[in-house]
Amino acid sequence: MSIEMDKVKIGVIGLGRLGMVHTEHLVTLISDAEVIAVCAVDKEQLMFAEENFGVTTYDDYKKMIDEAPIDAVVIVAPTGFHPEMTEYALNAGKHVFCEKPLGLEMPEVEDMATQINAHSDLVFQLGFMRRFDASYRHAKEIIDANGIGDIIYIRAYGIDPISGMESFTKFATDNDSGGIFVDMCIHDIDLIRWYTGMDPVETWAVGNDIAAPQLKAIGEFETGVATLRFENNMVATLIGGRHAAHGNQVEMEIMGSNGWIRIAQEPEKDFVTLFTNAGVVRPSMQSFSERFEEAFITELKDFIVNVKTNCQSDISVDDGIKALKIAKACKVSAETGDVVKIELS
Amino acid sequence: MSIEMDKVKIGVIGLGRLGMVHTEHLVTLISDAEVIAVCAVDKEQLMFAEENFGVTTYDDYKKMIDEAPIDAVVIVAPTGFHPEMTEYALNAGKHVFCEKPLGLEMPEVEDMATQINAHSDLVFQLGFMRRFDASYRHAKEIIDANGIGDIIYIRAYGIDPISGMESFTKFATDNDSGGIFVDMCIHDIDLIRWYTGMDPVETWAVGNDIAAPQLKAIGEFETGVATLRFENNMVATLIGGRHAAHGNQVEMEIMGSNGWIRIAQEPEKDFVTLFTNAGVVRPSMQSFSERFEEAFITELKDFIVNVKTNCQSDISVDDGIKALKIAKACKVSAETGDVVKIELS
Amino acid sequence: MSIEMDKVKIGVIGLGRLGMVHTEHLVTLISDAEVIAVCAVDKEQLMFAEENFGVTTYDDYKKMIDEAPIDAVVIVAPTGFHPEMTEYALNAGKHVFCEKPLGLEMPEVEDMATQINAHSDLVFQLGFMRRFDASYRHAKEIIDANGIGDIIYIRAYGIDPISGMESFTKFATDNDSGGIFVDMCIHDIDLIRWYTGMDPVETWAVGNDIAAPQLKAIGEFETGVATLRFENNMVATLIGGRHAAHGNQVEMEIMGSNGWIRIAQEPEKDFVTLFTNAGVVRPSMQSFSERFEEAFITELKDFIVNVKTNCQSDISVDDGIKALKIAKACKVSAETGDVVKIELS
Amino acid sequence: MSIEMDKVKIGVIGLGRLGMVHTEHLVTLISDAEVIAVCAVDKEQLMFAEENFGVTTYDDYKKMIDEAPIDAVVIVAPTGFHPEMTEYALNAGKHVFCEKPLGLEMPEVEDMATQINAHSDLVFQLGFMRRFDASYRHAKEIIDANGIGDIIYIRAYGIDPISGMESFTKFATDNDSGGIFVDMCIHDIDLIRWYTGMDPVETWAVGNDIAAPQLKAIGEFETGVATLRFENNMVATLIGGRHAAHGNQVEMEIMGSNGWIRIAQEPEKDFVTLFTNAGVVRPSMQSFSERFEEAFITELKDFIVNVKTNCQSDISVDDGIKALKIAKACKVSAETGDVVKIELS
Repeated sequence: MSIEMDKVKIGVIGLGRLGMVHTEHLVTLISDAEVIAVCAVDKEQLMFAEENFGVTTYDDYKKMIDEAPIDAVVIVAPTGFHPEMTEYALNAGKHVFCEKPLGLEMPEVEDMATQINAHSDLVFQLGFMRRFDASYRHAKEIIDANGIGDIIYIRAYGIDPISGMESFTKFATDNDSGGIFVDMCIHDIDLIRWYTGMDPVETWAVGNDIAAPQLKAIGEFETGVATLRFENNMVATLIGGRHAAHGNQVEMEIMGSNGWIRIAQEPEKDFVTLFTNAGVVRPSMQSFSERFEEAFITELKDFIVNVKTNCQSDISVDDGIKALKIAKACKVSAETGDVVKIELS
Repeated sequence: MSIEMDKVKIGVIGLGRLGMVHTEHLVTLISDAEVIAVCAVDKEQLMFAEENFGVTTYDDYKKMIDEAPIDAVVIVAPTGFHPEMTEYALNAGKHVFCEKPLGLEMPEVEDMATQINAHSDLVFQLGFMRRFDASYRHAKEIIDANGIGDIIYIRAYGIDPISGMESFTKFATDNDSGGIFVDMCIHDIDLIRWYTGMDPVETWAVGNDIAAPQLKAIGEFETGVATLRFENNMVATLIGGRHAAHGNQVEMEIMGSNGWIRIAQEPEKDFVTLFTNAGVVRPSMQSFSERFEEAFITELKDFIVNVKTNCQSDISVDDGIKALKIAKACKVSAETGDVVKIELS
Repeated sequence: MSIEMDKVKIGVIGLGRLGMVHTEHLVTLISDAEVIAVCAVDKEQLMFAEENFGVTTYDDYKKMIDEAPIDAVVIVAPTGFHPEMTEYALNAGKHVFCEKPLGLEMPEVEDMATQINAHSDLVFQLGFMRRFDASYRHAKEIIDANGIGDIIYIRAYGIDPISGMESFTKFATDNDSGGIFVDMCIHDIDLIRWYTGMDPVETWAVGNDIAAPQLKAIGEFETGVATLRFENNMVATLIGGRHAAHGNQVEMEIMGSNGWIRIAQEPEKDFVTLFTNAGVVRPSMQSFSERFEEAFITELKDFIVNVKTNCQSDISVDDGIKALKIAKACKVSAETGDVVKIELS
Repeated sequence: MSIEMDKVKIGVIGLGRLGMVHTEHLVTLISDAEVIAVCAVDKEQLMFAEENFGVTTYDDYKKMIDEAPIDAVVIVAPTGFHPEMTEYALNAGKHVFCEKPLGLEMPEVEDMATQINAHSDLVFQLGFMRRFDASYRHAKEIIDANGIGDIIYIRAYGIDPISGMESFTKFATDNDSGGIFVDMCIHDIDLIRWYTGMDPVETWAVGNDIAAPQLKAIGEFETGVATLRFENNMVATLIGGRHAAHGNQVEMEIMGSNGWIRIAQEPEKDFVTLFTNAGVVRPSMQSFSERFEEAFITELKDFIVNVKTNCQSDISVDDGIKALKIAKACKVSAETGDVVKIELS
């Protein structure tokens, strides 16, 4: 920690659930940042932000970038807008924090990467916040210290609570979510690459709508299961879904040749255990924002430090592109029924 | 294991819940034993036993002991009868397995002990079955191997499920249960003596009927809490009760100077964990007979081996007397509000 | 329970680890059975059985079947012998309990099935003992009562402790184990069919020897991962392995549309939890025989009842054939890298 | 949340472990507070604070209160100084946040209370931070919603890790810690009063130094066990200690007539579970500051809000006095061996 220099001035684009969370964290918890402006299409969201955070509001992101005296933008808009917003901000000389995934279509994401690489003087950071979660970091330390030997198999669950099904159905009716693998499993794909230092070479995936037949009509799988094979025949299984009755099950298991790690085998809400006529009950967390609150804060702190120290993030655009390509390969496999080769270079 | 000699011929006295369990175990699982006769006052119980186990039935225990060609008796009658039945059996030359506790009143229990000691050629074994439970034995091994250092504190819970409240209330209205400490905590008292090799020197106990006011009228505490001080100021807390909503909580914790052991911190019914809208739920065991089924079988096998090899049991009448005196001291303390010295010699 | 009829007279073929376990259970715990004879090639094993169980010994199974006054055989010999032994016993009029899997090669297994079906007056039972395990049965009850809704995904781990690696390597060098899917995962395949009432239609599998390179030379995968797709796109992942540092991880998870069940998410050895400088430690079970002791006893009791009441087992030869075909499809997939269609009719 | 008014200007007294934690939280996480000055006797601590937090430093708390332009003081000095510091600050017109316990001796604590009550225009808040912990609050909500019925029994563990023994021994050699009940159990006493709305009427306590004989010489019990009886015979057991091998066990259990709550039955460090040759291991938290980090932040935020809105804290000086008297009664009982009546009015 060092004596405070000037605060990093921020404009936030997008004030949906996560956008509001990021804004509140920046305003109330991150003393080196100052939110100057926010941009959204929803007037109520803008009014709420103005009243609560004392920020200038915009309904046009370009205008905000052009006019507001900001150093950096935090992009929390729908995925399809990430490439153009990032490029516009970079060209205006702003640092960029962008939520995952990079975008929906490869050509525009590749253009986006070209722009990012061309602005190496500006920080670009992608929102793989799980890398900042204490438990995932603890696991990383154990793995790097050879605490579990060579990795044999990884299992990753990203399963949202069924309580969110209705709002997701609405969202995915109006927007392209990217599908279960791109929208949900991409976090785990990034973690698997981070833990193993390897990329998968092929995948076979299956999707179903057994728990939510209404998703079929909008081309979404409720549950997707993708098996990834790596060069050395290490295997990873990704399970994405939106049907968990008990809460938000974001679990990962890493099997090594002399030990295993499980992260969040139960989504314990807090330290409370109930002994009732239902048995011994551990209440569960209900949302990713509850599960990853600390990680969300830490990643933004990290972004602010990167901006202030002019350092690039450990999470590169290349990580974003590779995770996206892998997720898209899973999607193609689930749609075609074929084993799909994964070409990353 | 060795080639089978003659089976030990058994007469069972008492066919209540536990009596029936013991009889079934002896008949179906313990090949070195043969149940020849059973005795009970309830005609239906006798009929059930005759039909299912093919045994001769009696409604007078003395008659059974006098007439049936048996080597040993298994006494599962109400506690108040234990002394006279034990003495009658021993005088008839029968080995005795007697359920805990030895009896209700000290004078007759001391006479009983005198008789037992006078018949040292006959096996007498007291039903402290927890010493035969795999988990308690595992703990004993760890303690004896100095795995947790010196014992500082022990906590023991013996709390029955609330589902048994109605039948207990009926039972205790008609019978002297001995009270919560004598009836329930005596098992834990024995275990604490077994683990520490020490006896407590004084106790302060409190009882209440908050969860079951109807017990007040029959002089029973629903919950009893006794704190035991040992010579070296090691402390044990006994909590006995009958109100657990979730199941049968028979838990023990042993704090040592370099490690702790908890036994059954949750009464897991089996290996099933449910993830439902209630949270993450581990179903609980509902009865002592479910929790200790293996231990009940193992203790009777041990008794049969003792009879066949003419060995006295590790669980002596002295253990029974000391545990009973300690339990009674707790009872006196809870009734008087005073700290009660425990005189064991 | 009813008054004992004549005991079922048994001959056991095979006295390896599990053979000895079955024999001891039959002798000491199952009062309706009587082991008359045992057969093995190892003289020490025979001598041990003779001394401890008082049985007649044979080194030729045909001779035992021809000469010993037995009603039934219990086959615990290496898998390759199951078909011929079963057929010989059936033709001699003996009931057959046969360990899983039915055999190694489909043609002889299909002949075996023909013989079994031709002797419908004799009981044939296959050793899928997990169906008798209390936890799996508990799960079955919940599923059948629609407690978790429609099944979406199943995950099954059958991972042996690394402590058994050396003895497995020796065994698999001398014998055809069938490979990880046939040897280990077949139990889970049977359970998945039992729980869902469905058969998979195709599989993609991968195997590796990362944790045990020495297995490569003998054509064994240490770890195998098979993804099974069902007609309705329900998915199951089978993970078989032999490298678990902590114990015997036989875990199953069934995700339903309104709840999940996990069976044995941790292989708790007993009720002991340790609080040491290592953290909070739950000791693990180290072997399948420890994990499934009760199930092994219950399945043999079931067999004895089936013989005495002249009932066919719920576990049919058809179950055995289908599970074997599915396991073999996984094997082919792992060896070829292709998605393999599963033809069961 | 509302538009920021002026920040509350703070002077911190005491920069030991917890003092530094509070200071850092105030500087980096609580945007409505500004630390202007700090006071300590240790020059290195002052230098560290000056360099890292840009604050003015003092070695005389009176001078700081007199000279620094502060609205409030946060007192984290040794307990014995709490009364005089509080009184000096109040008389200077400063709001006071004071770490628990109020003080060591009753007369001066009662004078302190008189002063606090005389300055009802100034906020006084006592550092019972556990009331701000998410898990304890969750339990409070359940209890208040009658989720577990009437309270029958409470068990509270406050047991520090053995890793802190050396530094505690040094501290307690030089300072009066107040003893195990006043220093450690006082938090739980406050929680028990908060949950039940009742005060205990008598106690019997025992202390020992089995795990740390060196503490005997300095008049400290390593472990203290106090049993508290309430008017309705509800019972609470307090166990304080400093010997836990596995970490920081701050556990509470509340038994109600139709359900129980356990808080932190295992001090899970994060969501990581390890499966190693030691068994299934859940790493433990090692310090109270790790366990209660969020609570420490939340309580200071609450204090700042109280100051800004001119509200008195929910945690009154009366709560502090009653908890202290109860803890002292436990101490007297452990020292005399007598049951001690607790007089609170």
